[in-house]
Amino acid sequence: MLRSSLKFLFQWLFLMLLFFPIFSATKLRKTPRLSPFGPKFLRDPSKNIFSSSSLHSMKDFETKFYEQTLDHFNYQPQSYSTFKQKYVTNSRYWGGANSSSPILAYLGAESSLGDDFSYIGPLSDNAPRFKALLIYIEHRFYGESIPFGLEEDAILLKNESIRGYFNSEQALADYAEILRHVKEIFGAPKSPIIVVGGSYGGMLAAWFRLKYPHIAMGALAISAPILYFEDLIPHDAYFSVVQKDFKEQSESCFKTIEESWDIIYKIGSKPNGLSLLSRKFKSCSKLKKIDDLSEFIVNIYSSAAQYNEPPRYPVKLMCDAIDGAPDGTDVLGRILAGIQSLVGSDGNRGCYDLRGYSDYLTESWDWQTCTEMVIPIGGSDNITIVREKPFNMKERNKQCKRHYGVVPRPHWVTTYYGGYDIKMVLRKFGSNIIFSNGLRDPWSRAGVLENLSDGLLAVYTIEGSHCLDLNPASEIDTPWLTEQREKEIEIMETWLANYYAYLK
Amino acid sequence: MLRSSLKFLFQWLFLMLLFFPIFSATKLRKTPRLSPFGPKFLRDPSKNIFSSSSLHSMKDFETKFYEQTLDHFNYQPQSYSTFKQKYVTNSRYWGGANSSSPILAYLGAESSLGDDFSYIGPLSDNAPRFKALLIYIEHRFYGESIPFGLEEDAILLKNESIRGYFNSEQALADYAEILRHVKEIFGAPKSPIIVVGGSYGGMLAAWFRLKYPHIAMGALAISAPILYFEDLIPHDAYFSVVQKDFKEQSESCFKTIEESWDIIYKIGSKPNGLSLLSRKFKSCSKLKKIDDLSEFIVNIYSSAAQYNEPPRYPVKLMCDAIDGAPDGTDVLGRILAGIQSLVGSDGNRGCYDLRGYSDYLTESWDWQTCTEMVIPIGGSDNITIVREKPFNMKERNKQCKRHYGVVPRPHWVTTYYGGYDIKMVLRKFGSNIIFSNGLRDPWSRAGVLENLSDGLLAVYTIEGSHCLDLNPASEIDTPWLTEQREKEIEIMETWLANYYAYLK
Repeated sequence: MLRSSLKFLFQWLFLMLLFFPIFSATKLRKTPRLSPFGPKFLRDPSKNIFSSSSLHSMKDFETKFYEQTLDHFNYQPQSYSTFKQKYVTNSRYWGGANSSSPILAYLGAESSLGDDFSYIGPLSDNAPRFKALLIYIEHRFYGESIPFGLEEDAILLKNESIRGYFNSEQALADYAEILRHVKEIFGAPKSPIIVVGGSYGGMLAAWFRLKYPHIAMGALAISAPILYFEDLIPHDAYFSVVQKDFKEQSESCFKTIEESWDIIYKIGSKPNGLSLLSRKFKSCSKLKKIDDLSEFIVNIYSSAAQYNEPPRYPVKLMCDAIDGAPDGTDVLGRILAGIQSLVGSDGNRGCYDLRGYSDYLTESWDWQTCTEMVIPIGGSDNITIVREKPFNMKERNKQCKRHYGVVPRPHWVTTYYGGYDIKMVLRKFGSNIIFSNGLRDPWSRAGVLENLSDGLLAVYTIEGSHCLDLNPASEIDTPWLTEQREKEIEIMETWLANYYAYLK
Repeated sequence: MLRSSLKFLFQWLFLMLLFFPIFSATKLRKTPRLSPFGPKFLRDPSKNIFSSSSLHSMKDFETKFYEQTLDHFNYQPQSYSTFKQKYVTNSRYWGGANSSSPILAYLGAESSLGDDFSYIGPLSDNAPRFKALLIYIEHRFYGESIPFGLEEDAILLKNESIRGYFNSEQALADYAEILRHVKEIFGAPKSPIIVVGGSYGGMLAAWFRLKYPHIAMGALAISAPILYFEDLIPHDAYFSVVQKDFKEQSESCFKTIEESWDIIYKIGSKPNGLSLLSRKFKSCSKLKKIDDLSEFIVNIYSSAAQYNEPPRYPVKLMCDAIDGAPDGTDVLGRILAGIQSLVGSDGNRGCYDLRGYSDYLTESWDWQTCTEMVIPIGGSDNITIVREKPFNMKERNKQCKRHYGVVPRPHWVTTYYGGYDIKMVLRKFGSNIIFSNGLRDPWSRAGVLENLSDGLLAVYTIEGSHCLDLNPASEIDTPWLTEQREKEIEIMETWLANYYAYLK
């Protein structure tokens, strides 16, 4: 009896040991933020991004809800269910249906639509010029547009049946239905629609023009990394730009960062090393593992590079602090100085809640990255600015399976939307898409950076960062940013002129 | 007690009367056959449609099964289920991956793929010329490609959950996956794919090139009525061509048909009239209602016009019989003579099983027409060759709801695939599609009959009928058919030449 109990205990312990490393390895790895706007800690309080809001009064914006079909590609009775999808219109500047005045449509991405719409520059800035009707549509499963009357929280994502309806193809189909509906209710069958989006929303805008050309006459796809799938580009492309940004800012700053990793990992691996690092980096609670610190720091560097916006230029800010620390400051002290230059000298509570900076992505977006939006970002031997493992699909499968009960379909995005041989495929196919990028944005490496044809145009700036041109124009804009915006407007004006010439 | 029983009885009778007309009105209305090949009774036994089969030995065709994803646009665990989808390859003439030789892909439509593939002319005829790899893919839910291990029969369509996965968007996604897979297993990433289909399959081919240009380099869409949705064309377009075909063949023949309807309905409404009509038209069992006879006759006229192929020319055959009946033959006698000229003098059993001619569409296709393939064919005041009511969406909804528990989504095809303002929308969008038609085919009115742009070309013949150019070339082909085929081949050769020029 004792013998069999012992045997059972050993078996159990063996199983525990067998599975423990798997469980501990399956924490869901977050991909860098894919969003038009940087995290709060990065925002320059001196810069008012709502600079053009004076053009628009909140009362011009009308919020509506569309009875949206739950599943456009399935005919089970449940697929016919509907949910209320939020969209907002502003017709103050619209020239009307008689003149077939255009419609500018903002395609919402992986967040709530919010309440302030004047921050979408290409819409609010251009409404008077184009005499455009403005429309903003919330992406399904975000904000107030969640099926089954649920709210955007974890509960939603615990239901494996409900979240199945949550993906980009359904979202594009939603946009198609709502835009058709809006043209109907405004009695404007001939009004051309230009769709606009940034980041993931930029991908949606480009894909929408490709898949629904009969609904959108053109697309402005801002900072849309449509090539960050499968092996279309090297997996370390993102961090290679982060590295380049810092290196170009200051070689010595970069060297300091590079050196810091050996030191961090050396200290961290010693007994009591985590306590030392906790104190050094002022973490509010004691580090449980070195990865928590590493993730925090990597996120700061990535965010600084991605949102390296004028006039603050976070990469410059950090490197100035790292390079300019008082003589005698050690390497980790310099790194801390760099972090403090961005984040504030001592966080919010006299210390840094490390998770507060790294946990910047919503549960909903995690779901998307575990189904089709499998963006294979990872480190490589060439990357020394961060310590990141190469992207590992098997690991990712394991994480997603554990979190959501299903594994990603990494081939699907390239099968449905394409990407391979994009220049050859699209040179005679499609038209009226602007791919805009800023080359200091790590995501830009997965953007379209050359003209694919006369109708599919790349407009980029050397100095630009992520989604800068989605912000409203402002007096403090740099000349290159102003020029990028003007180019975009000029191209859209050509589209419209061609369209009206054909209508006549 | 008696009083309340009586009250109950009256209430029940009242409800019966209330609902009876609805029930009796909800028989599922069949739309005319949408298939490359005519019904059996129309096939000319003297014509061997497998004329080019000498090029291909059955052993060159390899049948394979692909583990296909059940639902490409949903991420419920069930969506990840797979089913075995049949496809067939023939690499006998393929020039190989080193020369990036092309792939000709036949997209299966609303029927089993069958076993004889040499009857798909554009593939079997052109394999040697193009040094092409041939591939034929069965449409999901037809033939051997049915999920859940079911067979193609009524049982399948009794399950409202299973049939939800059965629609054209999923079918196109299937084709995309299989074609990608085939390029992988043949190691041929640069081999351009041209997709080919006829009728519904022709719609799929055109739509596939529009939605998956990165997978198909071009499409030959034969007799594809992509505009027979919503109000893109008049609902009576189909019968207006049937009428025109007969009228142009013989004015007197048309007049006889026109006259016959008043006579048929007049007799049919008399006591014992149905018996009279049964005897007159040699129906095997006594007519239960006049609609059964009407449906039978309408189907004969429609089929004759749709498959009005050389050398038999069914419309001519019928009109010759109608006009040439012995002097003194009454109107109905002439109609019968016309029918007999096509169908044989006395059916199979010395009489006609009327349902045997009208029930030509599968249950599976009925499902498709009750979800998204809502083709609004109906009569009008202008149509006198048949007695058909105008298309009635409410009626259709009722029929489909009763049959399948869900109602059609008539707006979806035009929302997902487009169709409105097709010339304006596509003049600068898309390329490499041939829309081929024969103008005697009633479906042709819903086809693309003018060039939309330099890359989207209409190739039609005045004399042609439905899907003639999908048949293999044959010695008995008319000059205009040969010319149509040559035009198509010439265009495809240009696509390939441009493609290879770009590859270099």
